[in-house]
Amino acid sequence: MAPPLALGIDIGGTRLRVALVDRAGTLVARREVRTAAQAGPAAVVEQIHVLAAELMAGLAPGSLAGAGVSSPGPLDTVSGIALGVPTLAGWVDVPIRLMLSDALGLPVVIENDGIAAAHGEWRFGAGRGLRSLVYVTVSTGVGGGVVVDGRLLHGRRGMAGHVGHMTIIADGTQCPCGNRGCFEAYGSGTAFAGRIAAEAPQLGISPDTGPAEILALARSGDASALRLVAEHGDYLGIGFASLLHLYSPEAIVVGGGLGSGLDLLLPAIAARMQRSAMPAFRDVPVIGAGLGENSGLVGAAALAFTPDPG
Amino acid sequence: MAPPLALGIDIGGTRLRVALVDRAGTLVARREVRTAAQAGPAAVVEQIHVLAAELMAGLAPGSLAGAGVSSPGPLDTVSGIALGVPTLAGWVDVPIRLMLSDALGLPVVIENDGIAAAHGEWRFGAGRGLRSLVYVTVSTGVGGGVVVDGRLLHGRRGMAGHVGHMTIIADGTQCPCGNRGCFEAYGSGTAFAGRIAAEAPQLGISPDTGPAEILALARSGDASALRLVAEHGDYLGIGFASLLHLYSPEAIVVGGGLGSGLDLLLPAIAARMQRSAMPAFRDVPVIGAGLGENSGLVGAAALAFTPDPG
Repeated sequence: MAPPLALGIDIGGTRLRVALVDRAGTLVARREVRTAAQAGPAAVVEQIHVLAAELMAGLAPGSLAGAGVSSPGPLDTVSGIALGVPTLAGWVDVPIRLMLSDALGLPVVIENDGIAAAHGEWRFGAGRGLRSLVYVTVSTGVGGGVVVDGRLLHGRRGMAGHVGHMTIIADGTQCPCGNRGCFEAYGSGTAFAGRIAAEAPQLGISPDTGPAEILALARSGDASALRLVAEHGDYLGIGFASLLHLYSPEAIVVGGGLGSGLDLLLPAIAARMQRSAMPAFRDVPVIGAGLGENSGLVGAAALAFTPDPG
Repeated sequence: MAPPLALGIDIGGTRLRVALVDRAGTLVARREVRTAAQAGPAAVVEQIHVLAAELMAGLAPGSLAGAGVSSPGPLDTVSGIALGVPTLAGWVDVPIRLMLSDALGLPVVIENDGIAAAHGEWRFGAGRGLRSLVYVTVSTGVGGGVVVDGRLLHGRRGMAGHVGHMTIIADGTQCPCGNRGCFEAYGSGTAFAGRIAAEAPQLGISPDTGPAEILALARSGDASALRLVAEHGDYLGIGFASLLHLYSPEAIVVGGGLGSGLDLLLPAIAARMQRSAMPAFRDVPVIGAGLGENSGLVGAAALAFTPDPG
């Protein structure tokens, strides 16, 4: 019998999560700790080892198909080497796949986090049944992953779909990647928080109000909060319209922390997309992710069942 | 025996070209006329019919695998319907594939022009042997087509790869598509000509100097021309850097009229890409197309031999 479970591992800059996932995409069990982000890759591998051992303790032999890992990038998923992860100290040219397969004693598939999450949404979330979709996570940064013609896009070194680092305003706002004017520099939760802090005084809002509070205020009808939300939605719409022309998806699926405010952001997103997209692209819907914070965890685990031939 | 030839048809806004192409991508015979761009689709189909009849006159029965058509878009290549081609009058919701297969008595494959050209370069041109590439044509507009993981990207309605219509400077220069700030609005030959006209007076250049003359002047070392070329290369570099992050190609292949000046544009393109791309993407080369003006014609014909399953 084919193994019924896979290990999903989501390495975040803040949280490290390990789970048992079945073939239907259901989380059977889950562990979570704060990522030892400053302690180097060996320490994080040891954290994963400990959590995985707890989860695997009671399992019958042959229960696990393998492990699927979602890691922040850029990550060369062909060689399994982390090329330099900005949020994790010392993750430069680290053979992370090999380290994990040695530690876990399992075959390991590794994926850039945006692609892993796109896989989760495609197989088990909001994108089920589609042949083409773009998944965008709007969180600390802006990440993504892409399915076109029924396949996950990988490209050279498995690094396709870094949608946060397309330029939307050349020579504009500084992006953490080093470039100026990236989609991430305008569309991320961090950018939203920065804009709130900058514009709050004129709007009569306390400058330390966070994005979640602004969303709550907007939901209650506060005009100033609605204006900030609309401004952010406009930036998201600029990037989303470009993604339509670039990939021609059947839907744009939005996840990440700010994804929970998608209903509030959507009018401004849609208005910008109607203006910026060519008519043939205008009827493509923007929809919320179906798996919440688990898109990457579930998507990574599912890769361990069905390694993508691409 | 499998038919040795296919008909390639390249419908341009200015020129209409029909050719016999063999399985090695060689143009066996070619006809060209000015496109009856203002006369409506039936007139253009009749032009194609006449040229094809001339080319097919001496062929033995069973020589032709079919016809492959490169058409300006956006074009729904799944249904075979032209959705509204800006450069061709009356091409709105026109069942062009059906009209052509009726007229020619052949199976017809139709492709958005950028994708057809990408296919030609991938199979027989500068991109031979690569698994992932982005083809960009820099001409009157900016078009493109993309190969990722050994497949042509099609997406919904076959409209992926409209790289000219990603926004690079939001709310910037007006683009023919209706949006402002598209890559095409800054990177096309038309944009280059406009910039020459605008900046020529200060540079001591006659304002009616064309792009080809500026390239020739730059080649002879003229400082003002080199400055205009560098400025254009910088805009191209902005777009190309985004394409690296989006598709992770092994190469960017540049064709179209301005492609002939790629050697002159390249220093500025490369400088911008080094600045704007994340380190993991910086070693991807930008190379000239191998088939010149025939990328689309050859690529379309080749689709008639091997219809893409995507």
